[in-house]
Amino acid sequence: MERKELIEIVHQTRTLVMDEANSRAVTAKGTADFVTKVDFSVQDFLKKILFREYPGIGLMSEEQKENEIGPDTDTWILDPIDGTTNLIHHYQHSAVSLGLYEQGEITLGVVYNPFTDETFSAAKGCGAYLNEQKIQVTDQTDMLRTLISMGTDPYEKEKAPENFALFQKVFMECTDIRISGSSALDLCYVACGRLDTFLERNLKPWDYGAGSLILTEAGGKITDWNNQPLSFDRNCNVLATNGRLHSYFLENIVND
Amino acid sequence: MERKELIEIVHQTRTLVMDEANSRAVTAKGTADFVTKVDFSVQDFLKKILFREYPGIGLMSEEQKENEIGPDTDTWILDPIDGTTNLIHHYQHSAVSLGLYEQGEITLGVVYNPFTDETFSAAKGCGAYLNEQKIQVTDQTDMLRTLISMGTDPYEKEKAPENFALFQKVFMECTDIRISGSSALDLCYVACGRLDTFLERNLKPWDYGAGSLILTEAGGKITDWNNQPLSFDRNCNVLATNGRLHSYFLENIVND
Repeated sequence: MERKELIEIVHQTRTLVMDEANSRAVTAKGTADFVTKVDFSVQDFLKKILFREYPGIGLMSEEQKENEIGPDTDTWILDPIDGTTNLIHHYQHSAVSLGLYEQGEITLGVVYNPFTDETFSAAKGCGAYLNEQKIQVTDQTDMLRTLISMGTDPYEKEKAPENFALFQKVFMECTDIRISGSSALDLCYVACGRLDTFLERNLKPWDYGAGSLILTEAGGKITDWNNQPLSFDRNCNVLATNGRLHSYFLENIVND
Repeated sequence: MERKELIEIVHQTRTLVMDEANSRAVTAKGTADFVTKVDFSVQDFLKKILFREYPGIGLMSEEQKENEIGPDTDTWILDPIDGTTNLIHHYQHSAVSLGLYEQGEITLGVVYNPFTDETFSAAKGCGAYLNEQKIQVTDQTDMLRTLISMGTDPYEKEKAPENFALFQKVFMECTDIRISGSSALDLCYVACGRLDTFLERNLKPWDYGAGSLILTEAGGKITDWNNQPLSFDRNCNVLATNGRLHSYFLENIVND
């Protein structure tokens, strides 16, 4: 399967994502955890087209009830809307994130933000792209010159004391921090050099599936907070850097 | 003077703002405080054209040494680049912010983000616009459903303990928080309903000059943290809301 084929499929979700009426049809899944009709319409659309075009590949997706992944099963990993809170608020910073998991690793990934017309993509071993321009991470090693993004882990508000202590620690060492509300886009922003590092506790596989490949193909590094490879069958604390900053963050920031 | 005239002048800065080579020509003004050749080129360009077209109006601007404003002097209030750190990192979230201060108040304001082709503007008494569409604030009163943006006050890192305690307090009460790095755009995002509230300590008049009018013309409210009108001759702690949330924030969040 080709990277460009997959991009064409994902681009077909554009009108579904930008459907304002559906983005106002909101249901609460939990505290600070919402889903809209857009999430479901994008998921249903992609599920149908992917099952038709590529029979035999399973689907793990945020808005379906049963999700299983095994090392021997090829599986699409989909977040129909990464940044649902942003979507609800028309914040213009949400993306469709679709990765292909084959034999234990992600081999293809697309992250598409229709509000900015930006498509990040990668195929294993072939580099990472933003709208067909090759991208790469920064070569920054001076923490004082870095821009660092963090996720607030909004569905576990009881962890706020440790998370905000961590944010403050990072802030004291870098130029400034950002909180964008889309982990998929944050990973892609590290990939294309807009950020030097992104970190968030307790992300789900669909948050980092596609983005993790885009980042590593752009020269970056992504692991959990214990420097272990990310799992795709459970939540992970994610550390994504330009590579050069990785050991610094492991040793000084996230060593919990 | 017409709002649309001023927009046309500000739009002429587009190529200057997007000059990648100049955005890489960075000088440190202080800790985490940088200026680029873009800041200067935008300031010089607008200064020249404004002085030529509107002689007799003064200029207060971030990157010039002497800035004075008096109640009887009409003055342009300019931030040539609001979000300079974002510009340096190609983060696509910076704006030119230009306001006109006449007889003690802002009467005209334009905030232009060339990376997204979004122009926010307002004239006193005539409403606020995003790309010639009228905008208005949200009517949200339920804190649990709000999206709140905050600035990190990056040039006063010694204030981080109180600032991050405040961020955590807000986070516990709302859906989620954002940190974008552009206070001018944050004010406009409250104006157009993408955010419900924005707050930051120790902003300068050019950070909120234009944005304060755009917000109030969109139905919002902006004061300092003691509920006093903003000053344009000194720094202020800024609270900007959709109006309905203002007293809640004054009484429960920023009462220091």
